[in-house]
Parts: sequence; structure tokens; C-alpha cells
Amino acid sequence: MPGELMAAEVAEQPDVLSRLLSDGTAPIAEVAAELGRRRARFVLLAARGTSDHAALYAKYLVEVLLGLPAGLVSPSTMTLYGARPDLSDVLFVAVSQSGGSPDLVDSLSAARRCGAATVAVTNAPDSALAQAAELAVDVRAGREQAVAATKTYTAELLALYLLLGGLAGQDIRRRAAVLPDAAAWTLRLSDDASGRIDAAAARLLRHERVVTTARGYSYPTAREAALKLMETSYIGAQAFSGADLLHGPMAMVSDGFPVVAVRSPGAGGDAMDAVIDKLTKARADVVLVGPEDGLPVATDGVAEELAPVLEILPLQRLAWRLALDRGGDPDSPRGLRKVTETW
Amino acid sequence: MPGELMAAEVAEQPDVLSRLLSDGTAPIAEVAAELGRRRARFVLLAARGTSDHAALYAKYLVEVLLGLPAGLVSPSTMTLYGARPDLSDVLFVAVSQSGGSPDLVDSLSAARRCGAATVAVTNAPDSALAQAAELAVDVRAGREQAVAATKTYTAELLALYLLLGGLAGQDIRRRAAVLPDAAAWTLRLSDDASGRIDAAAARLLRHERVVTTARGYSYPTAREAALKLMETSYIGAQAFSGADLLHGPMAMVSDGFPVVAVRSPGAGGDAMDAVIDKLTKARADVVLVGPEDGLPVATDGVAEELAPVLEILPLQRLAWRLALDRGGDPDSPRGLRKVTETW
Repeated sequence: MPGELMAAEVAEQPDVLSRLLSDGTAPIAEVAAELGRRRARFVLLAARGTSDHAALYAKYLVEVLLGLPAGLVSPSTMTLYGARPDLSDVLFVAVSQSGGSPDLVDSLSAARRCGAATVAVTNAPDSALAQAAELAVDVRAGREQAVAATKTYTAELLALYLLLGGLAGQDIRRRAAVLPDAAAWTLRLSDDASGRIDAAAARLLRHERVVTTARGYSYPTAREAALKLMETSYIGAQAFSGADLLHGPMAMVSDGFPVVAVRSPGAGGDAMDAVIDKLTKARADVVLVGPEDGLPVATDGVAEELAPVLEILPLQRLAWRLALDRGGDPDSPRGLRKVTETW
Repeated sequence: MPGELMAAEVAEQPDVLSRLLSDGTAPIAEVAAELGRRRARFVLLAARGTSDHAALYAKYLVEVLLGLPAGLVSPSTMTLYGARPDLSDVLFVAVSQSGGSPDLVDSLSAARRCGAATVAVTNAPDSALAQAAELAVDVRAGREQAVAATKTYTAELLALYLLLGGLAGQDIRRRAAVLPDAAAWTLRLSDDASGRIDAAAARLLRHERVVTTARGYSYPTAREAALKLMETSYIGAQAFSGADLLHGPMAMVSDGFPVVAVRSPGAGGDAMDAVIDKLTKARADVVLVGPEDGLPVATDGVAEELAPVLEILPLQRLAWRLALDRGGDPDSPRGLRKVTETW
């Protein structure tokens, strides 16, 4: 059946999170302890595709929880231009589902030679990337068969939270413990609200373009939702931080233009209110994610920095529904393979 | 006449570059010398909109020429979440045409309190941002009236090159000296090839979506071209690095899908050949920027790191042409004002 792999992997996420918490917390704590001894002063993050959104999430964790400056790596500066920066005091984290992309392996290896402490966060502990890194974190999501990554994304988010929140001395066990149930509840709510997801898909069906937007910790959710929509439904989905949307791209938003806006509780969501107000005034067709009358997310009692693990779930369902409604098969998008090799 | 301001400001760029070289080189060298004494070990860049693409360009300069790790700031981590990272040894560069965006002023001020050396690169030396920074660079582009930034973008690129190339000990005067003539020549070539720009606009006219792509130093060009197309023509333009395009978004590219690909001489352009090949096989309608049979750019004798100052010129013309052909006025896009205030 078209989309059955993606649907099964979306549904599997509460179990994946639960397994990562039970089996992964201790080994990740060991990696965090080793990193604590290294006393990094800067953090660099490297990834592509879906994992790049997990890396962006990690950047917020680093800046807010660890209080360290962070950057997303442009792998090409090392692989194409041969840059060899001084990376002593630098923590270099590469995130990749497959651990197989040659340019990530090359950048991580170059960073290691330049003195960085290197960590690979993958779903493939035997991969070239995990082997090239000094330290490795296994996100334990199990084999992912659908081309569109779902369970590896939320597993990467949680693994990065355990690693970086642990390094920051957060009470990660207690905070993360609620996630499997909250994820199951969010999926349940999205079943109950399946009429709303169907209706949102119907609103997108006749459009070639959609904008996704959020701020703060939820901005990676907007980015990942846009990629899911692009790769499964081929719709032109563009993600903007709520702040950047007002610089230029807002001009595209005309009467009836569809916008998916993530509005979770917390500072990031609060800052979205002005953006949502402006979108409403421009008569955009706004699909809200988070609020009760939108696509629901079970964030009660969940720390703001963990909301991204949950917010993406109804959006994965929306991408899946829209792909089917548009006559596609979300399990095997045209032109894509599971492992993308870039140099 | 619709678009006359933008057209005039596009045409003014050789003079703007020339003025910046004659009047700006010495004061920028003083700022670079002061930064040299500060011995930064990490560089953070903050900007929004068009200036964010200049900041992305600066990130490549920092990584390749200075050999320092760099990151683009998420202003929200400091403004929304109150992060107060240890930024001693950090150079914090904010780039803004108007110098008036409150969240940039706030992030720069917070960075300064956290110990960073702060530099504001603006077209407004009396602005709040320039005043909040310890050091300031004036890009001297003159008043920009069109809402779509053009001459301030190329002036920001050149100012950042003079600053960071100077800090890296490059022979910046000699390398940059060719730019005014090369820019005039590129605009002249694009007049001579105006049939090609008109034809490219005609190819985009019936589409609601376009992808722009490039790699390395030219990736900011793809980003800025996408923003120009969005804000003047309201077309859904999405920029991807050539490497990221192959991770997911490639699925959107069907028969006849329009793609603007920048292929300048050098390592970044060389790495695009495989991407262009894949796009051609997917039967995308590829508009090439750089090669002789595409939209021409006068890069002969120009260092690869300076090509972005030139590559954007035919793309500004393309955005202008397309906006007019679609019945819009590129001087006053709907829903936008010249200074965007975000918090």
C-alpha cells in the first residue's frame, strides 16, 4: 500500500523514544562526561537534509543551555576549499541517519585533524561517520525503510537533547521521561483530529506552494515540515523563521496563500503571535500547529526545549496525507534514494 | 515608471564599488587592524534578509581565508531565551543596510556585554546598530530607495571582503581593484545579452516556483537571487546548496521545472557540474549563470572569492524583468517596507 512504510515508522516513534531513553541514556551520558572533560568553547554542527534540522535544534540547545557560541558548518569550506581552521577547544558534532555521506565523513575527519573533539550522532553505529569520529552516539531508531526520514529525526532530536542537555547539567532524565507518552498522546490526538489533518491537506491540495514558519526552538520544526512536504508531495514548501518571513518573503503571501505556523507554548511561540497576526491581516490561510483549535500537540508539562520532538508528529501525518491525496507514494519519492552521497 | 528606482540602483553598482574602494579601504583597514590585535578565535555573524546573504558570504571568507570557525547567529537565542554565552575571543559581526532592526541591536549589545569584539557593517553610520557596536564599517552605498536591496548588497559583500580579507593578510587592494570595471562589464554583457535575460524571464513567467542553486562562495548568490525573485515577483523561489538539493528537494524537480544554477569558475563551480548534470537528466529547465552560453558574468581575472559581487548582477536584472513582466512594481513590493522591525 502506498505510504505504509512511512505511516508505520511515524506510528513507531513513541517506542523509538522509549527505547532510546532506556538503552541510550547511559551510553550518551558517558559521551557527555567525556565532552565535559574537554571543555569545548565553541560548537560546530554538520549535517545535511533532515539531520540538518536536528543539527539546527542542537544549535539552540548549545546556545541557550550550554551558553556557548555555535555554528552550522558549511562542509564545502573544508572539502572544496581545503580550509584547515584551528579547532582546538571546538566540539564538532556531525548528525546523519546513515552515517554514509562522504562529504560529512571528510569534514568530520578534517575537523578531527584540526584538533576538534568529534562526535557522530547516527542511526548506524558501524557507519563510516561513526568510525571516523572520536566519540559516537547511536540514536537506536531501528532500520528506517521509508525514504522520508521520520523516526530517525525525532530520535536524533532526543539523542542531541540527552547529549547537550546532559553536558549542560540539566535534569535530562526527568524532563525527557514524559516524551514517549506525550508522543503517543500527540499521535492519538492527531488520530482524533484526523478530520483536521485531512482538512489541512485538502486546503493545501490545490496549491503549488506553502510557507512554514516558527521561531526559536520550533524553527527547526518549520524547516523539517517543509522538507517532508517537498520530498513526499513535491509541493514548493518554504520555511522561514517568523522574523525572517517579515524581511522580504512576506511579499509572496497573498489572499489565501497557505501558511503552516507552529505556535507552541513558550518564548518562541509567544514571539509568533505578531507574525500570525500579520499573516491573518494579509488574509493568508493559516494552519496552526500547537493551539487547541489547530493541529494538536501534547505539550502540557513538557519543557519548551523538548516540544520539537512532538510538534513534528502531526506535520509528518499532514505530509503523508497530502502525498496520498496528490496521488503520490510517500514511501518512494521520485528522484531520491535513502542514502544521498554528496562530495 | 514601475521599477525605475531598482533599475537605477542596479546600474549604480560599479560607481558604488568604486567609491567604497577609494573612500572606504583605509577606514576599513583600521577596523581590521584593531580586530587583528583582538585575536578572535571564533566569529559570529548576525543579519536578516538580504544582509543575511552577505553574512553567509562572510562566513565562507572567515572559514577559508581566516581559518577560523564561524557561525550565523540565531538572534532569538539571546533575545527570546536570554542566552548569555561566554564570548571572550569571539568576533561578532552584524550586517544590516539600515542598522535599524531592534533584534539585531539587542543581539549585538548582548554579545558586547558577553565579551565579544563587536563590528557593525551598515549603510547607516549613525544608526542604532553602528552606535551600539565597538567598531563600525560604513559601506557607503548612498541612499537606497527601492525596497529590494541591490547596491547595498554588493557594497556589503565588498566591505566584508575588505575587512576579513584584510584581516587575513590578503592583497585586498589589488584583488578588489578590478571589481568596478568587472561590474560595469558584467552589466554591459547583460545589456548585450538582454535577450537572454528576457528569455529567462519568459521561461519563469508561467511558473509559480523556481529553485536557485550554487555551491561554495556562490551559494549566497543563489540565496540572494531567490529572495530578489520572491520579493519583487512573488514567485516561490527556493535556494539550495547544490549538495543539499540532492537531499530531498530534488524530488520536486520534474520535467520543465525551472532552476537557476550559478556556475562560476573555481572549486564551487566545479562541484556544481554533477548537480547540473543531474538536473539536466531530470529534464529541469536550467538557466545557467556564469558560463558563456548562460547569463554572462565577467569573472576573467577575478579571484573566486570575489565572484559573488558580480554574479548577482544579471540575477538582479532577471528579478526586475520578471517583476515587470508579471505586472508588478519591483520598487514597491506588496506588504514590505524598507526597514523591517523584528524583535
